[in-house]
Amino acid sequence: MTEKAQIGVTGLAVMGRNLARNFARHGHTVALHNRTYRRTKELVEEFGSEGTFLPAETAEQFVASLERPRRVVIMVKAGKPTDDVIEEFAPLLDEGDMLIDAGNAHFADTRRREAALRERGLHFVGTGVSGGEEGALHGPSIMPGGSAESYVSLGPLLEDIAAKVDGVPCCTHVGPDGAGHFVKMVHNGIEYADMQLIAEAYDILRRAGGHEPAEIAQIFQGWNSGRLGSYLIEITAEVLRQNDAKTGHPFVDVVLDQAEQKGTGRWTVQAALDLGVPVSGIAEAVFARALSGDPDTRAAAAGLPGPAPQAGAGGTDLQADVEQALFASKIVAYAQGFQQIQAASTEYGWDIDPGAMATIWRDGCIIRAKFLDYIKQAYDKQPGLATLLVDDYFQEAVGGAQDAWRRVVALAAQQGIAAPGFASALAYYDGLRAQRLPAALIQGQRDFFGAHTYRRVDADGSFHTLWATDDRGEVSA
Amino acid sequence: MTEKAQIGVTGLAVMGRNLARNFARHGHTVALHNRTYRRTKELVEEFGSEGTFLPAETAEQFVASLERPRRVVIMVKAGKPTDDVIEEFAPLLDEGDMLIDAGNAHFADTRRREAALRERGLHFVGTGVSGGEEGALHGPSIMPGGSAESYVSLGPLLEDIAAKVDGVPCCTHVGPDGAGHFVKMVHNGIEYADMQLIAEAYDILRRAGGHEPAEIAQIFQGWNSGRLGSYLIEITAEVLRQNDAKTGHPFVDVVLDQAEQKGTGRWTVQAALDLGVPVSGIAEAVFARALSGDPDTRAAAAGLPGPAPQAGAGGTDLQADVEQALFASKIVAYAQGFQQIQAASTEYGWDIDPGAMATIWRDGCIIRAKFLDYIKQAYDKQPGLATLLVDDYFQEAVGGAQDAWRRVVALAAQQGIAAPGFASALAYYDGLRAQRLPAALIQGQRDFFGAHTYRRVDADGSFHTLWATDDRGEVSA
Repeated sequence: MTEKAQIGVTGLAVMGRNLARNFARHGHTVALHNRTYRRTKELVEEFGSEGTFLPAETAEQFVASLERPRRVVIMVKAGKPTDDVIEEFAPLLDEGDMLIDAGNAHFADTRRREAALRERGLHFVGTGVSGGEEGALHGPSIMPGGSAESYVSLGPLLEDIAAKVDGVPCCTHVGPDGAGHFVKMVHNGIEYADMQLIAEAYDILRRAGGHEPAEIAQIFQGWNSGRLGSYLIEITAEVLRQNDAKTGHPFVDVVLDQAEQKGTGRWTVQAALDLGVPVSGIAEAVFARALSGDPDTRAAAAGLPGPAPQAGAGGTDLQADVEQALFASKIVAYAQGFQQIQAASTEYGWDIDPGAMATIWRDGCIIRAKFLDYIKQAYDKQPGLATLLVDDYFQEAVGGAQDAWRRVVALAAQQGIAAPGFASALAYYDGLRAQRLPAALIQGQRDFFGAHTYRRVDADGSFHTLWATDDRGEVSA
Repeated sequence: MTEKAQIGVTGLAVMGRNLARNFARHGHTVALHNRTYRRTKELVEEFGSEGTFLPAETAEQFVASLERPRRVVIMVKAGKPTDDVIEEFAPLLDEGDMLIDAGNAHFADTRRREAALRERGLHFVGTGVSGGEEGALHGPSIMPGGSAESYVSLGPLLEDIAAKVDGVPCCTHVGPDGAGHFVKMVHNGIEYADMQLIAEAYDILRRAGGHEPAEIAQIFQGWNSGRLGSYLIEITAEVLRQNDAKTGHPFVDVVLDQAEQKGTGRWTVQAALDLGVPVSGIAEAVFARALSGDPDTRAAAAGLPGPAPQAGAGGTDLQADVEQALFASKIVAYAQGFQQIQAASTEYGWDIDPGAMATIWRDGCIIRAKFLDYIKQAYDKQPGLATLLVDDYFQEAVGGAQDAWRRVVALAAQQGIAAPGFASALAYYDGLRAQRLPAALIQGQRDFFGAHTYRRVDADGSFHTLWATDDRGEVSA
């Protein structure tokens, strides 16, 4: 009897190829398939010595080379290509086999596909994979959804290839159906917010602090050994340190300042709106990229009046202040993202453990950071935490940071430096802790113009004021 | 031969009833239909003297009582009820007849329905109607989409019942298929932003100014005779002036401070994200309502550290400063909303005249205001305006307001008063006018961790830096 593969990968572009190699390097026999056989052959020729590969020319051969229950990792483009591959393989599989979508699908598509394949007796495991090409090869953070039953058989293989922190794999069963892709989406949304906050910190240090990029690189490098220590802070220092060979200018000054995006940030905000969770930090980050990427409007608006920032305006404490503002704003962004995960978990019955999400993001993914240990500990202490902001560690951190945070937001406003992420995070914080919000006035307006009714602080039920009458009496609604 | 009706209304809850009465009061014979005949009978019994009504017990009778081409206004709940009514009536209609959906449909549903009914030879006219019950009866702002051909026959009737400003009806053909419902949706999104900004102005005057609601009512009443003059400012004064009969307290203090929402604000932001238009003002307003409406998280966060606002902290110029901040932030919110309309017009080929939208919002709808005349004039002068902010009037207004605006944003940050709308609008303004944005750093980060490439300020094409190599050279991508 010929050897069978424990897992197969179809779609051998760079991500699929690196995942396949990662499985093989961990001692698993890996079946290979690609729409064109050339890629499959190339992989074996180039990396065949790394492990045992079973290349297949056809889908049928590929399926036949897998042990049962079969585990087929799909690594193709999201959308129609994924549906096409599912339709190609599902008829070849048997009850209990698994199709693992490791691409960047929208969680609603994953829910639809999972339900349809469940009807056909197959497990569909929508799986978030973060870490890019390098992560796929050396150890990504892996967020599988799908049935608990599928994880029993599939989980150990995924945990083998995942990044590890002190031996703990950055992979866990997130929850049923679309839970894995949802959590990956929010991971990316948080990443947008984190990058925007870092960009604002840099901008303020440069324009109100008068620092050159190389100096700011040093500042970020210093921060990286402190509580902000993280992959994104580390690479920010690298990017800011870089000089352009062609011009001799700082690299960051020769890059066009129009940020691009691929859609998961937008998806996160749209899903949060459906769930009614305020993720203002992620939204401001998505909008800031959109604004930057609209050169026509920016060109038209370039002459609009406003102050020119004064180097030195931030005073001698600016570096320390900005570090505090960045840390506090980052806490808010993560608090919002985790609240979105909890809201979705309730909405879809996923029963996600938020602390476990922090655990599997500690390495392998873009937002990996020391910081995530504190999030894990917060949820370990109190699984039903209403918001990260009320955990002892974070509350103390924000409490200690807030004076500096307020100074930085005020400074940016006065100096004409756009800091939508810092400002929005602070406004969210002050809104959340407010004893009374002017939302009461909004309810009054809504009742006035649309008879939408309001509730009272001192009585149950809904009420309406007869605004059009002379005595404007109140009635129960 | 019996008399025929020029128009029919099916769905006689309060909005449908008032629209029907409005048509009748303008001399049109109106056919009436409702799922239960009782409502139809009641309308005729109560308001039959206002004009000529042709009540019908069945859909067939209703259709038979209409002159050709038939004009059937549907006023039922959005979603499935609307589809059900369409399926009830479409088979009874003939080529060239019109179905007018005057409910709050999502524009994507309207596009779908319009395309399907066009196939069947019928005109489907998705129509935004703003102004609530009173507007429906006395003159709403009306935003019909659908074919230009349908407007030739239908437009004069709608213009008859619309609000008028100096004889000009607040009704025009917005554009094909879903254009009308899209514009109505953005109208509502702008309304969210406007209400949030007003709420922040009130909150700052109260907590940093130390003013009581009755005093703030006076301030708003004063503003209402100035450039902020508008329905929303007017009713804000009314709401703040109101005293609660039961407790003797200001009404605004007995209303529960948890704002509700019905979905069009959320839709606006979701659509803007799809279009890539930054509508941060609307998003912050939607999120502020969501935050206020989450009592559990607020209760948990109530003890978080932060300053207690000091009455008088805003200084003696606070009233004037807040007026400036409110006006400038309002300009930003409208600029964003109009940019969203223009982006959708391009995306869907609607050819919307933005100045005409400002014109039909001048009366009948919730955001009616003097202000809209300036928007109309801005687009009359320059139909291709990149953003309202660069129009002479608005540029001068913001230029004059900005010092105060910055003071208010800084004050709110320092005093611990949440002002997400003011702060976000200012950050948008400063982002738009910035010569360089830190988006360049974001592009550098993206290239570092994901090889997403970047463009350069001094060369065409896309580039990638080989970050993992020793000399970190640049390659063309």
